[in-house]
Amino acid sequence: MPDSPKTLLDKGLPETGNDLLADVSLPAAVIHEAPLAHNLAWMQRFADDHGARLAPHGKTTMAPALFHRQLAAGAWGITLATAPQCRAAFAHGVTRLLMANQLVGEANMAIVARLIEAGAEFHCVVDSAANVDQLGRYFAARGLRLPVLIELGIDGGRCGCRDRDAVVALAERVAGEPALVLAGLEGYEGVVQSDEPTRDVRAYAWRLVEAAQALDLDGLIEAAEPLITASGSAWYDLIAAVFQEARLGAHFVPVLRPGCYLVHDHGLYHRAQQGVLQRRPDLERGLEPALEVFAQVVSLPEPGLAIVGLGKRDIGHDQLPEPLRRYREGGRADRPLEVDGWRITKLMDQHAFVTLPPDPDGVRVGDIVAFGASHPCLTFDKWRRLCRVDERLAVVEVLETCF
Amino acid sequence: MPDSPKTLLDKGLPETGNDLLADVSLPAAVIHEAPLAHNLAWMQRFADDHGARLAPHGKTTMAPALFHRQLAAGAWGITLATAPQCRAAFAHGVTRLLMANQLVGEANMAIVARLIEAGAEFHCVVDSAANVDQLGRYFAARGLRLPVLIELGIDGGRCGCRDRDAVVALAERVAGEPALVLAGLEGYEGVVQSDEPTRDVRAYAWRLVEAAQALDLDGLIEAAEPLITASGSAWYDLIAAVFQEARLGAHFVPVLRPGCYLVHDHGLYHRAQQGVLQRRPDLERGLEPALEVFAQVVSLPEPGLAIVGLGKRDIGHDQLPEPLRRYREGGRADRPLEVDGWRITKLMDQHAFVTLPPDPDGVRVGDIVAFGASHPCLTFDKWRRLCRVDERLAVVEVLETCF
Repeated sequence: MPDSPKTLLDKGLPETGNDLLADVSLPAAVIHEAPLAHNLAWMQRFADDHGARLAPHGKTTMAPALFHRQLAAGAWGITLATAPQCRAAFAHGVTRLLMANQLVGEANMAIVARLIEAGAEFHCVVDSAANVDQLGRYFAARGLRLPVLIELGIDGGRCGCRDRDAVVALAERVAGEPALVLAGLEGYEGVVQSDEPTRDVRAYAWRLVEAAQALDLDGLIEAAEPLITASGSAWYDLIAAVFQEARLGAHFVPVLRPGCYLVHDHGLYHRAQQGVLQRRPDLERGLEPALEVFAQVVSLPEPGLAIVGLGKRDIGHDQLPEPLRRYREGGRADRPLEVDGWRITKLMDQHAFVTLPPDPDGVRVGDIVAFGASHPCLTFDKWRRLCRVDERLAVVEVLETCF
Repeated sequence: MPDSPKTLLDKGLPETGNDLLADVSLPAAVIHEAPLAHNLAWMQRFADDHGARLAPHGKTTMAPALFHRQLAAGAWGITLATAPQCRAAFAHGVTRLLMANQLVGEANMAIVARLIEAGAEFHCVVDSAANVDQLGRYFAARGLRLPVLIELGIDGGRCGCRDRDAVVALAERVAGEPALVLAGLEGYEGVVQSDEPTRDVRAYAWRLVEAAQALDLDGLIEAAEPLITASGSAWYDLIAAVFQEARLGAHFVPVLRPGCYLVHDHGLYHRAQQGVLQRRPDLERGLEPALEVFAQVVSLPEPGLAIVGLGKRDIGHDQLPEPLRRYREGGRADRPLEVDGWRITKLMDQHAFVTLPPDPDGVRVGDIVAFGASHPCLTFDKWRRLCRVDERLAVVEVLETCF
């Protein structure tokens, strides 16, 4: 089949000069360069200002080109969620990998063993004696040493030892496995559920500090530069503040792990960011949404109803996506049309039902609508390629993902 | 980085002889061969017995190896939802493509134009004068003819003309576009919402028949072998029965388009199939679930709680997935352990919270749990590769997807 410039997105060959995604098959996921660059610099500066290292959670995007921008902006490493994600990042040149989860299963251990053999600087998390035994046995048999962080969790939360005594007991168990290197402490405050989250996230951050100090005092930490790490994209300000107040710098490298900050969102993290800015009015101009999905009106079958070619396979749908702007196909990117009163009422696999206001301003089949969503992780993973665009909505880069 | 047999799933190189997904990084999506083969033959026989052609909806799996099995089993063609899906199927050798949606946007039209130029037998759907005009103009400029089916919808439904008069009026508009070939009628009964769905789906099927006959009587159909097509995976029995009762065979090729039947499910389509078998007790041994996702217990942080490495990125979650069986890692596939009383209560991106019964029968970190889900389309699209396995849970084929 002959190629053509029209296959732009398919072939992964960026071509500038075409406004408004002109040659891109829609629906398509779009990242706007200006807010992306802003967010990238903003969060790095935030970490720097708080004396913390930034290991952005790469699971959000799984886009190596974005990992490289994060590293170039000053990130210490990349956080990942699974062994295959670590393998993918390493294959794309990321050498410092923080797997903020338990490493379970021999096939996953084998992936990590090969990464370590190949020179990766790797950490993962442990929270059970059973897993410590499994890892100790596996890595000893491979003749390798595995750096691990103990996870401190919360009652009713997700993974993690439930108290400091359990952390210390597990550290002693790690000390009994010659193949394991205790390298610090890990937590995730995103599972704190509370009516007073500011208080309780701070309290959890202090529990992390105290547990880390207990390990240090007991001489259980083997690594020369141990880590203390926490923070998603909602409460990073509180974690960073406590780590800073605790003056851990001399004993621990504090590492923050937000991921969603990079493209931000139009839902969950938008609201979380409002909370950050209320708590920290000194932080100027917060994060800005950079990720949208563009799709076209495919049918106008009844008054007040548009069917758009956007479905659950195209965009995160923890919440129904939000129409943001509209364009006429072939029109100009700088003259968007209104979508006041447009609202998605139902999302199927490949279709969105959009109710229109009584006077929908000349909507046509083919009109292009930009949608925002909540929780970027579950939009990124719908795409093997995303378009990075400039202000004219011309594609300046096709970003491959490696989910 | 050196390769190893452990990279089985990553490298796409099947290797037999390893029981229980031994070398596969979990979580992993698994298709069981026996129910797959059963479903494949069952639905083809159903279509044959009703004098209908089968064009399985390929959007469900987007796995070319499964398209080829469907075609080898007797399918007439493959149905797809979007132009890029059609392109992917054609690139893998599928030459008869039924795009059961509107073709909107010049980039999508360009994809289809190239498919037609390359020899694809292609149909898409129209339901608006605006889209007819757009397609007529585009394909005339390319010097191509595009076969289209008119969609008949339902009030309050999704796309489609709302009544027969609108269908006929649109057919006349198609007749005025030399680049378009009217090739029949399309509908989708899956959007019928009713307290008496059996009655209303049948009524809708008859409306399709009558509209097709009206087009035929008016001499508006140009194709020599026009199509009449409907049916998802829930009401195919009613559609097939009406098409058969209507004795359309002489004038129209009846085409059924179920997709989910191939791997079936543990939710929506399981219940729908119970309805089919109640309506049609003559149909022996219905469809069987073939798709599961296997994941491991990564943490047992509190009594009564297991955290499993299975998340929204791994499995469809319109409904919370259901634990089906459990295995000890390295154990035997023919001796699964119980999961009585195990229940997912919450799903995050990469983690499932599973409540355990008071006596969870020796659960361990590392235990492998098989999960079933509702709606296979939204599990397939989470994976670039799935494992087809035999009764021993040994991988016999790595199936690539082309979403």
